[in-house]
Amino acid sequence: MTVAHPGLTVWFTGLSGSGKSTLSLAVCEQLAASGYRVQLLDGDEVRLFLSRDLGFSKHDRDENIRRIGYVAELLTKNGVITLVSAISPYRSARDSVRARIPQFLEVYVNAPVEECERRDVKGLYKRARTGEIKTFTGISDPYEQPLTPEVECRTDLESIPESVERVIDAILARVQTS
Amino acid sequence: MTVAHPGLTVWFTGLSGSGKSTLSLAVCEQLAASGYRVQLLDGDEVRLFLSRDLGFSKHDRDENIRRIGYVAELLTKNGVITLVSAISPYRSARDSVRARIPQFLEVYVNAPVEECERRDVKGLYKRARTGEIKTFTGISDPYEQPLTPEVECRTDLESIPESVERVIDAILARVQTS
Repeated sequence: MTVAHPGLTVWFTGLSGSGKSTLSLAVCEQLAASGYRVQLLDGDEVRLFLSRDLGFSKHDRDENIRRIGYVAELLTKNGVITLVSAISPYRSARDSVRARIPQFLEVYVNAPVEECERRDVKGLYKRARTGEIKTFTGISDPYEQPLTPEVECRTDLESIPESVERVIDAILARVQTS
Repeated sequence: MTVAHPGLTVWFTGLSGSGKSTLSLAVCEQLAASGYRVQLLDGDEVRLFLSRDLGFSKHDRDENIRRIGYVAELLTKNGVITLVSAISPYRSARDSVRARIPQFLEVYVNAPVEECERRDVKGLYKRARTGEIKTFTGISDPYEQPLTPEVECRTDLESIPESVERVIDAILARVQTS
């Protein structure tokens, strides 16, 4: 069963460990199971294919987001609900993507850095604290919060199913009324 | 009107001036007019978005093709007929993309280099002959012909409408029987 619907870019931004991957994967699976055409672009995976040459300076992070944004734009204009999960710490880079994609929905996956560090799913905060990772978002590198995200999920205060439901409601409100 | 169909990557390879852009654009317009979901990825344009950092060494050309291939793969698995127009001079790079995309159709846009140089639409052959462009495919850099392309268009021997028709026939044979 497939559902007819327009494309949409759903951009999950937030600190490492805030819950972007968990949330975007759950949203992806639920939409796919309901017959929506959906593609998840995970920042870490996309880097392997599009940005092996890039590091983590502001310039390189911005270039990485520009490339992911281009791919999201192509998928979106071809009717795919495209979920992007990427730290994307700089507001101007996110806003540049938004400016290119009319069907854009920003999800701020928000948990305090202390909570993300406590979770430390990938052990990256520990490596950032020892100085092994030099430029780590939230510790030694900036994260610019979205000012007016369409959805904000406080993953330290609400459960994953609650966050998933709110994101899906926002997506359906967009693709069913377009 | 839209037609239900699976995705397909149609890869146009050939020398500069062989007719890839002309042919792929005409195929794109004709399929779109018939209600197919179709996306044209032009090598020159994609470079601007994904590969501004890359030059024209074998390594860089291969990396560029790898990135375009990744984007084509994503579009194709989401049901888009994706037309790629890129010189893509190295056989191994094209075959690597083919190995990742089950729905793949290679179109060899073939005209003798003498004919491409005579046309010299972009004035590039002239710049290659004077040495201004150092590594130019067909002049000072290799072009490895496809060994078993699904379609070969001899653009010096057949008209554009003839080539377009043969490519579209091949596409429809794939997306209508899948």
